[in-house]
Amino acid sequence: MTPSPPGRPTVLVLDAEPLPRLGRLTGRARIEHTDAATLAERLPGADVLLVWDFPTDAVREAWPGEGPRPRWVHTASTAVDHLMCPELTASDTVVTNARGIFEQSVAEYVAGLVLALAKDLPRTWDLQRDREWRPRAVTRVAGTRACVIGSGPIGRATARTLKSLDVTTSIVGRVPLTGIHGPADLDRMLARADWVIAAAPLTERTYRMFDTRRFGVMQPSARFINVGHGALVDEEALAAALSKRWIAGAALDVLRQEPLPADSPLWRVPGLLLSPRMSGNTVGLHDELSRQFVELYTRWEARKPLLNVVDKRRGYVPGH
Amino acid sequence: MTPSPPGRPTVLVLDAEPLPRLGRLTGRARIEHTDAATLAERLPGADVLLVWDFPTDAVREAWPGEGPRPRWVHTASTAVDHLMCPELTASDTVVTNARGIFEQSVAEYVAGLVLALAKDLPRTWDLQRDREWRPRAVTRVAGTRACVIGSGPIGRATARTLKSLDVTTSIVGRVPLTGIHGPADLDRMLARADWVIAAAPLTERTYRMFDTRRFGVMQPSARFINVGHGALVDEEALAAALSKRWIAGAALDVLRQEPLPADSPLWRVPGLLLSPRMSGNTVGLHDELSRQFVELYTRWEARKPLLNVVDKRRGYVPGH
Repeated sequence: MTPSPPGRPTVLVLDAEPLPRLGRLTGRARIEHTDAATLAERLPGADVLLVWDFPTDAVREAWPGEGPRPRWVHTASTAVDHLMCPELTASDTVVTNARGIFEQSVAEYVAGLVLALAKDLPRTWDLQRDREWRPRAVTRVAGTRACVIGSGPIGRATARTLKSLDVTTSIVGRVPLTGIHGPADLDRMLARADWVIAAAPLTERTYRMFDTRRFGVMQPSARFINVGHGALVDEEALAAALSKRWIAGAALDVLRQEPLPADSPLWRVPGLLLSPRMSGNTVGLHDELSRQFVELYTRWEARKPLLNVVDKRRGYVPGH
Repeated sequence: MTPSPPGRPTVLVLDAEPLPRLGRLTGRARIEHTDAATLAERLPGADVLLVWDFPTDAVREAWPGEGPRPRWVHTASTAVDHLMCPELTASDTVVTNARGIFEQSVAEYVAGLVLALAKDLPRTWDLQRDREWRPRAVTRVAGTRACVIGSGPIGRATARTLKSLDVTTSIVGRVPLTGIHGPADLDRMLARADWVIAAAPLTERTYRMFDTRRFGVMQPSARFINVGHGALVDEEALAAALSKRWIAGAALDVLRQEPLPADSPLWRVPGLLLSPRMSGNTVGLHDELSRQFVELYTRWEARKPLLNVVDKRRGYVPGH
């Protein structure tokens, strides 16, 4: 038995569950698990914080104001808004995210929702339950128009997948770039879209950006899909837009409050499909997330620059 | 008012509904409508039969044995098995079908079913009805394997669409060709497929080809989808395969008996999704089918060779 070298970095894992693949760090790191209750007392002694339990507000609440703190925080998620607080933003602690893991899964999920809505599958399965044979004409998605809000990897992967189904797809991002519209074009794109796909990170500019006014801009035949962040949407405004038939349907895979309480009126809004954050939740995900952390750790211990470094003020990994 | 030329061909339309676009044939054809009850007495006087009412057995039952008969029969469907009888096959009457209209719609429908099953959408919407928030891990379709049975335009369009979702897709046809497996490979392809897609025409060789033995060859994780013809499937064998968990799920868009009677046990087979022939039933379909007939009629009256000519013995339009 080789004794562990002295001075191994301490990796604090915010989650009680054992993780796959962290065994690869045996002898290279001291892996310690913690939960939200003990996080504040253990953070000062940690070199690295791995936020595995997503979503949680524990980091923001426990982050030390001054003094010793982890030099690196990695979150096994794309979103970082649940971590960020002024002290973390101001510090020299590096924050990284799980960019690269969720893109294809989310793109497929959006394509699945688009096709399911176009082909009226929810209604077909309701009719099956009632033993009713009722043929209806459905929509061909080829030639319809989608507007994807969010120009990050998830938005771009989603646009690529929709284009492969011959959907005419535009992306709206925070700044205009080649092939990406800027915010000034947003309302014009919304007004002609058959599919509006929210895939943006939560920032001050995207908070509740889908509000009464924006649902009013959309076509009566439009369907709205949110795989970005629950707080992008004013859910009451969406429910009202659906019940007034301002838009034809919606699917939310992320919600303001999760789990959604059983007494929430959202469960039964006509034309609203809900799913419990399934778009990125694929078989094998934990293994991929762990492998990604081990790769980043290997760079970090070799003093190589980290990848997936989040711009803490903006709230996402910048650049394409 | 120009009087119609004498000797205009008579186009007999098997369907009571007025059709879009046939007005273009004003002065060029005598359009007459009939129904199944009067078809037999009117067929001998018709030059062209347009079978609009699909599916129907009326043509097979009314087709004259000898003597005058239409020189051309067009069906507004891909399948022709509902028309064919020995007298029609032996005659010099040309049969054409609606090849070119349904391919993309059916391909999209199959992609929608594949994604809906991979993402467990039916279960998610059941849970929504029960106000239950239950996140589960779902399947990424990229990298899974599909086997499409049927190398005609619908099978090939379906394969193209699945490939665009990064599904590894093979086609099995009646004869091996470049990029298409022959029947000798079928069982081997079925044994490794995550998705088995039936998109073949009904012929003597495909009748009930999906039987107990073939469901037994498939993987326990496989899903079976039929958009080809109801009679390709032994439905009792499929129901048994599902209930014994030989395969993980199935979706039938075509059935042996349509409409499916309310007392059929198929409505409630666990893991079986039913839809009433929706895959090709798109908004604007009747207009497209009518336009196609007018185009074919324009060739026919100019004595140009018809397109979409069915090989009456094989039961489909041969060639790629």
